[in-house]
Amino acid sequence: MKLATILYKDVQRIAQIEGKVAQLLAAPADGLGVVSALRGPAEGRAVSEEVPLQDIQFLAPVPQPPRIFGIGLNYADHAAETGREPPAIQTWFMKQMTAVNAPYGDVEKPVVSDKLDFEVELVVVIGAKARHVPVERAGDVIAGYCVGCDYSVRDWQRATPTMIMGKGFDTHAPFGPYLVTPDEIDNLDALRLRCFVNDQLMQDGCVADLIFKVPEMIHHLSTAFTLLPGDIIFTGTPAGVGIARTPPRFLFAGDRVRCEIDGLGHIDNRIVDEVKATLIA
Amino acid sequence: MKLATILYKDVQRIAQIEGKVAQLLAAPADGLGVVSALRGPAEGRAVSEEVPLQDIQFLAPVPQPPRIFGIGLNYADHAAETGREPPAIQTWFMKQMTAVNAPYGDVEKPVVSDKLDFEVELVVVIGAKARHVPVERAGDVIAGYCVGCDYSVRDWQRATPTMIMGKGFDTHAPFGPYLVTPDEIDNLDALRLRCFVNDQLMQDGCVADLIFKVPEMIHHLSTAFTLLPGDIIFTGTPAGVGIARTPPRFLFAGDRVRCEIDGLGHIDNRIVDEVKATLIA
Repeated sequence: MKLATILYKDVQRIAQIEGKVAQLLAAPADGLGVVSALRGPAEGRAVSEEVPLQDIQFLAPVPQPPRIFGIGLNYADHAAETGREPPAIQTWFMKQMTAVNAPYGDVEKPVVSDKLDFEVELVVVIGAKARHVPVERAGDVIAGYCVGCDYSVRDWQRATPTMIMGKGFDTHAPFGPYLVTPDEIDNLDALRLRCFVNDQLMQDGCVADLIFKVPEMIHHLSTAFTLLPGDIIFTGTPAGVGIARTPPRFLFAGDRVRCEIDGLGHIDNRIVDEVKATLIA
Repeated sequence: MKLATILYKDVQRIAQIEGKVAQLLAAPADGLGVVSALRGPAEGRAVSEEVPLQDIQFLAPVPQPPRIFGIGLNYADHAAETGREPPAIQTWFMKQMTAVNAPYGDVEKPVVSDKLDFEVELVVVIGAKARHVPVERAGDVIAGYCVGCDYSVRDWQRATPTMIMGKGFDTHAPFGPYLVTPDEIDNLDALRLRCFVNDQLMQDGCVADLIFKVPEMIHHLSTAFTLLPGDIIFTGTPAGVGIARTPPRFLFAGDRVRCEIDGLGHIDNRIVDEVKATLIA
């Protein structure tokens, strides 16, 4: 099943995507989006209307996730290109929930940095409240998978060892275009993920090369704290990011970044200049 | 004004605390607690009933904050005791919103660690949606102040440079007992903060010794991303933490930790052993 949170006639809805058609579901589209639809009563998954894809706009499958976790240096080739050893222990950071963006939304090049970078990633959506999850039961807490781009502001990221500031800029966590439920995926390890900047292939990796696997991530995180329905996990990026290139390739207004994963679709973001404005509301 | 989120006759309420009396307010007690009461219509702050403090139970003033930010090494004496230079730039980590605890709630000594430590901290509660806040306007986004304890699992914290895992264990972010609005505080810098373990004074610092001041924190965070009403900021801890003592003083079941700040009241937590259980719901 491919489940999306969409905008149709200015109303937020849940839709099942079938080819070029969006089947609108009865379930209400709250902040947890497709996760609420999956966890809610079966009636919510009844199809109320079919509309062509060109009439809808994709939002993030979970528009307001409780949290977004990201793991650092989780592909050996990416660790190598940054000049670091693959970590012996899972290294977690967080992206901000205020950074959530639609799969085809504009991404801001911050006014305070010229070091905006791309990272294609497999995204895991948590579907249950969970603590102390054994590796072999991790599948019970996974709602599904998406494509994500972990936009990173390298100078702000590297200014301190905790990474937080450079990973959380507004608009820097687009994911989607829909949630693909685990039953649709024969072999997660076989999926390849690619990132193109202006149609040039920049990253080309394979989920099989993850150093820490998804069940190990869920086990580790839930050893310390309770996971929540709608929590998002960015699982790391393969080699080819902008900062590791010679010369470095950072993103500027007008660039387009397309991230795709076999079977999960693609997301596509245009880079725009942030317009700096004080907001106090 | 001292505003608390409380439990009275098993119902969550907002209350204004006056001496030994809780004045129950009309405002509904949602996940943002006192922040919603402050931002909502004036009618919500009408007093509906007065009850003695012994009849109520204090909850966290913001029971479900969007996020909890913490800043590392923000008192020179604490940086010195950990053997590190005071940072030249603000070093941020996050605690988990699932770690929120009531001001007098039990705190779990994790099954996976014997390195549980205490950190008394001034806590700032954000009262507005805010981005790019100039230092001189930071006061406009502060709802008020509380006492907090940034419980830290030192081996998990130090296993990776990002700190996240050791800062976010369930129950490890108690704060309260109420929100004190800024108009009640003549001079924030003058406030002293103390932590006692089993009545022994362990930390005794002063807000004046913050390396990065509260307005600078709000400016820095909001340069990267949008702050939200109900966001919580743990502003750092002074010297005296358990790991820096000779011998180290970690916390175990039966210990009591009392944190207090002049004018903001105190919180008091009993340490209990975590009972490990797999939860998938």
